Amino acid sequence: MEHNIDLSGYSIRTDLAVEAHELAWQKNETDIPGVLLQADDADPNIKVTRLHVQNEEGGKAIGKLPGHYITIEVPKLRDNDTSIEEQVARRFAHEMVSFLKELGITEEKKALVVGLGNWNVTPDALGPMVVENLLVTRHLYQLAPETVGEGYREVSALSPGVLGITGIETSEIVFGVVEKSKPDFVICIDALASRALHRVNTTIQISDTGIHPGSGVGNKRKAIDQNTLGIPVIAIGVPTVVFASTIVNDAITYLLGHFNQSMAESKRAFNKLSMSTLPERKEPYTEEDLPDMESRKTFMGLVGSLPEEEKRQLIHEVLRPLGQDLVVTPKEVDDFIEGVSNVIATGLNRALHRAVDEQNSGAYTH
Amino acid sequence: MEHNIDLSGYSIRTDLAVEAHELAWQKNETDIPGVLLQADDADPNIKVTRLHVQNEEGGKAIGKLPGHYITIEVPKLRDNDTSIEEQVARRFAHEMVSFLKELGITEEKKALVVGLGNWNVTPDALGPMVVENLLVTRHLYQLAPETVGEGYREVSALSPGVLGITGIETSEIVFGVVEKSKPDFVICIDALASRALHRVNTTIQISDTGIHPGSGVGNKRKAIDQNTLGIPVIAIGVPTVVFASTIVNDAITYLLGHFNQSMAESKRAFNKLSMSTLPERKEPYTEEDLPDMESRKTFMGLVGSLPEEEKRQLIHEVLRPLGQDLVVTPKEVDDFIEGVSNVIATGLNRALHRAVDEQNSGAYTH
Amino acid sequence: MEHNIDLSGYSIRTDLAVEAHELAWQKNETDIPGVLLQADDADPNIKVTRLHVQNEEGGKAIGKLPGHYITIEVPKLRDNDTSIEEQVARRFAHEMVSFLKELGITEEKKALVVGLGNWNVTPDALGPMVVENLLVTRHLYQLAPETVGEGYREVSALSPGVLGITGIETSEIVFGVVEKSKPDFVICIDALASRALHRVNTTIQISDTGIHPGSGVGNKRKAIDQNTLGIPVIAIGVPTVVFASTIVNDAITYLLGHFNQSMAESKRAFNKLSMSTLPERKEPYTEEDLPDMESRKTFMGLVGSLPEEEKRQLIHEVLRPLGQDLVVTPKEVDDFIEGVSNVIATGLNRALHRAVDEQNSGAYTH
Amino acid sequence: MEHNIDLSGYSIRTDLAVEAHELAWQKNETDIPGVLLQADDADPNIKVTRLHVQNEEGGKAIGKLPGHYITIEVPKLRDNDTSIEEQVARRFAHEMVSFLKELGITEEKKALVVGLGNWNVTPDALGPMVVENLLVTRHLYQLAPETVGEGYREVSALSPGVLGITGIETSEIVFGVVEKSKPDFVICIDALASRALHRVNTTIQISDTGIHPGSGVGNKRKAIDQNTLGIPVIAIGVPTVVFASTIVNDAITYLLGHFNQSMAESKRAFNKLSMSTLPERKEPYTEEDLPDMESRKTFMGLVGSLPEEEKRQLIHEVLRPLGQDLVVTPKEVDDFIEGVSNVIATGLNRALHRAVDEQNSGAYTH
Repeated sequence: MEHNIDLSGYSIRTDLAVEAHELAWQKNETDIPGVLLQADDADPNIKVTRLHVQNEEGGKAIGKLPGHYITIEVPKLRDNDTSIEEQVARRFAHEMVSFLKELGITEEKKALVVGLGNWNVTPDALGPMVVENLLVTRHLYQLAPETVGEGYREVSALSPGVLGITGIETSEIVFGVVEKSKPDFVICIDALASRALHRVNTTIQISDTGIHPGSGVGNKRKAIDQNTLGIPVIAIGVPTVVFASTIVNDAITYLLGHFNQSMAESKRAFNKLSMSTLPERKEPYTEEDLPDMESRKTFMGLVGSLPEEEKRQLIHEVLRPLGQDLVVTPKEVDDFIEGVSNVIATGLNRALHRAVDEQNSGAYTH
Repeated sequence: MEHNIDLSGYSIRTDLAVEAHELAWQKNETDIPGVLLQADDADPNIKVTRLHVQNEEGGKAIGKLPGHYITIEVPKLRDNDTSIEEQVARRFAHEMVSFLKELGITEEKKALVVGLGNWNVTPDALGPMVVENLLVTRHLYQLAPETVGEGYREVSALSPGVLGITGIETSEIVFGVVEKSKPDFVICIDALASRALHRVNTTIQISDTGIHPGSGVGNKRKAIDQNTLGIPVIAIGVPTVVFASTIVNDAITYLLGHFNQSMAESKRAFNKLSMSTLPERKEPYTEEDLPDMESRKTFMGLVGSLPEEEKRQLIHEVLRPLGQDLVVTPKEVDDFIEGVSNVIATGLNRALHRAVDEQNSGAYTH
Repeated sequence: MEHNIDLSGYSIRTDLAVEAHELAWQKNETDIPGVLLQADDADPNIKVTRLHVQNEEGGKAIGKLPGHYITIEVPKLRDNDTSIEEQVARRFAHEMVSFLKELGITEEKKALVVGLGNWNVTPDALGPMVVENLLVTRHLYQLAPETVGEGYREVSALSPGVLGITGIETSEIVFGVVEKSKPDFVICIDALASRALHRVNTTIQISDTGIHPGSGVGNKRKAIDQNTLGIPVIAIGVPTVVFASTIVNDAITYLLGHFNQSMAESKRAFNKLSMSTLPERKEPYTEEDLPDMESRKTFMGLVGSLPEEEKRQLIHEVLRPLGQDLVVTPKEVDDFIEGVSNVIATGLNRALHRAVDEQNSGAYTH
Repeated sequence: MEHNIDLSGYSIRTDLAVEAHELAWQKNETDIPGVLLQADDADPNIKVTRLHVQNEEGGKAIGKLPGHYITIEVPKLRDNDTSIEEQVARRFAHEMVSFLKELGITEEKKALVVGLGNWNVTPDALGPMVVENLLVTRHLYQLAPETVGEGYREVSALSPGVLGITGIETSEIVFGVVEKSKPDFVICIDALASRALHRVNTTIQISDTGIHPGSGVGNKRKAIDQNTLGIPVIAIGVPTVVFASTIVNDAITYLLGHFNQSMAESKRAFNKLSMSTLPERKEPYTEEDLPDMESRKTFMGLVGSLPEEEKRQLIHEVLRPLGQDLVVTPKEVDDFIEGVSNVIATGLNRALHRAVDEQNSGAYTH
């Protein structure tokens, strides 16, 4: 999660492709060329959205790299209900199996699962916590292959830590370990930042675009993706934090939307009203003539079309007393992270090993 | 912290007396009768505010019980700087010693320190974490009094847990333990909710008013204070969370203030403008006559004087997608809680035991 | 577990009635009056022993208070096998249900579960860890009784901490809470000391004799039992540590037993041999005449019948370099405690609430 | 610590060179060629032993690789006394500075500190816990070299995890990271096994021989040393566990020593005695003639010179009921590991960075 600290681009400060798409769509109110979206909400509890960014054009439009993004949204995941968690683990495993198949990753391909993030920072501990609960088998294949049954895959796992603890770029550690351990593909697990509090700990994103740290500190920080590693890199992420500025931004945006609507209504009312109550004259009154145009324009400027720059300025003023742009997480973060990391580990164990099914998958997690 | 979940009164949703006073002052823009405030910011890093709610009238005005409130604010406490932490521990110990003296609590009086809160929920674990680092001596006085040196006080400590874990009201547990262990006074440590993100983990409040759970679940939940226990109860609290709705509320309030100002300006501009451009007539135009009054009133209603109820409605709409009113905490909560609980434990050990000073107080905490 | 530190009686240093009985039996090699023992090993994985100490005489003989003791021994519990853990939870729940029935504790009786021990010391954290995973309902009965379904019992829970953390005797805290919360019976969970490493984390003891701290520090430390509380007190314990001296003691005892056997054999050989090889004389040789009697007696003294006092002396010499009598636990203690506390919490949830069964009991534990 | 599970060679089951030397010395009761030993106990609390294994011959004699071993023994480290901990940190830092100097490792050389072991197993968590408290600077040198003050060194750190969690040999991970991050030398921190309970958590060993996993699982497991990495590898270890069999072995050895002495005495007594009391005959009696030789030889066989193989057999019989050879750790392991990892981290921070001294070194650890 350490790559989200780039403050410059806060206005599209989201790691979720569905949110980036939503934002772009809100601006344009039209389909975005180069981006295909398909939503599946057959299951009342689980909404799955498939987003295909087909090319650079689509990528630029929504600020995400070309590739496939699957988003699993489960508002009830926040209820700490074990039967919901089991449903999500099942669906997540199912989506992972399909995703691997589409990428041509067959059962004998060796996986390295990388748990990104800082185990000392609860909202950032998702990756390490998933790694703790994985069914790891590579050492058995290496040391005692005859003991490994049918239906298992060679899986290794690593929690490389974060720059502040290791002093080494995560990507360098991953590159070194990939060179030595030679997996066929990599799965990276990471905590994400969302725009919306309601997506925190209720959403899982799968993508084939890898991990791309913010460019805030020069271009020294390398991506972990197929280009840099030479093998497929699947990223699994769960939003666990939001920027406080985003909450404020959303509140203001909502409020302005609310005002705009009232504006439109009162404008219509006024137009009818004024025509009849104003003194007659030869030339018909037009809107432009109306004496309140000046003030109304001011309002409109303020309310209806407050430009991005001004809105940002407002937000900064609201958050100024903080002296910094805080990132927040729900108070119940300990429980949430435990629950969702369990869901992902359970789902991954099933998706990576055919022999692990719903009957026995609980045995491999805490 | 479990007592802050009462949603009905969200508009004064703060456990900090200084914030409650600030809110009341903002409304009235005048001194509040029955409330004395004295700020001490001689130390550039540490601001200490003494608030004396003198009577019921003052209490009602700011929504806090009559009593003394000391607030120690240290924005730099967020920097994880051990030398700042030492400064704050020293000042906090100093304030506690004075506070005890003013309450007539002399050195031989026996203390029971109660660490309220849930150790499984990081932002709520402050109380239990402080208790873990206290220098507890009661058992020595009971079992081997001859081994206790000069300058120590009889101190016991308890982390009673929360209702969801024990099934027993915290107050019942405390009452039972007080009856059996017979302390002369009680100190309760608790995590608080603040209105402002910038006060989270940077502020310590000391008061002599005890602990008063929200009245949301009937009046079955008892206070822990001098009335109910029969001995002085000092409450020490640190804000560790804010309600997301408070962040939004503050943002909207700020925004509306901003608009109001613009409104006033544009209204003045309009008035000049309209008088000259409108057709002449006998009776002078007044503002009331202006044809855009309808819409302008709408605007004003929306923007200028949005009533509390409507503002609350707006906030609920903004937060509606959440399905609940989330309480948030900074992402770095693990570090913050560890740091501030260490400060409080160190300070309490010094304040309670004269023999513990800056040279050796570190030895009793982790 | 803090009550096992009494060093004076190390020779019967065990909290397990079956071990105390075994020791007494080894000495006497005969049935012990006043003690009934019944072993059930129908299940190949789980051995259940029921020990009834019928009176004071039996109690003195084995050093345990009169009462009922059930011991569940599962060597495979150490294998971290979730299906074994489920079997044990089921059997433990079954035994608890029977035990409650025999004590006349019906379904509407209110339980207080007390998790004794120190959460900061892993081998002593059993009690607190069980409490964390209990299905606690008392607050629901108090605050919203209409929401509690059929088949549940009023259960509360408490982890009072240890003397070194609180400065208050655990018994005082429990007495205070019992007076205020008024349960009908108490269940205490505690980590125990065993004589044998192989019983550590593989054995569960249930008894109706309560908790009796060592008398090492005067008689100031009170028991938690039916006499002191006035309501039934069931103790559930799991051995998690052994005294290093016990390991040494057992090794020496075993060794001496081994030697004794060899001694007996060689003595017989010698007797045959010596009779024929010694010079003839009128009076027949007896053993007493044999010239090596001196040395042999020395050997026998050393080996065959080394008195308790001397054996203890030897052990102290072996352990002397330690400067203390260390208590040890298996290296894997973290895993063991997590596993066995889960088993006990799961079993207790089923035994206390009829509505909790094998299908849903997992939902209440982590 | 995972490399100590090789059961075949349990009789020299120690990771400490001083213990291996002691064992070899006990056998031979003479100086061992190729091994130099120098003890420094000027400080009453801290004994430092320097062992130089000069060549292969010396190495074979004591079962340790040629190289330098420094052992710091502090029995009082077990008392949880912060002033002792500070003394040890200071001495450890001092020894490390000398050790680095002797190896020709100057101040500008870049260090990679590797925390070996399993963070989920408390007695094995030493390495990871030290890493958490290190002052890591490499990223500052890489990203913002101008911000690094005088007197610091480029330090990075890694906790690679254990084979059971990652599925990858620790050495492979370290090799990969060394290739990418290019340190000049490596420091490995690891928990060790000792022969003696009294050395657990009271001893620190520094050596220049690197880390050498047991050869129990084929020769697939690679060492981490200068040969394999091409750069100096310093190993820092603290014994945190002992094999239960070692405790038993030591007890039996002690007991047999005790018996041997008694045997010798009684033999002498017997010889005198028998000569005079036996019937006269022409040929003088020799010891061989004595009729009790048979049995005495048996005794001697059993007691005086019980061969290693038989002793091992005995120990196995004593431990047989366990079904496995348990490794044990003191009950207070959580506290011990926290204390000693803090000592090592504090000492390392001082030894690696000249700018870190006793005034400020506490600031970098928890």
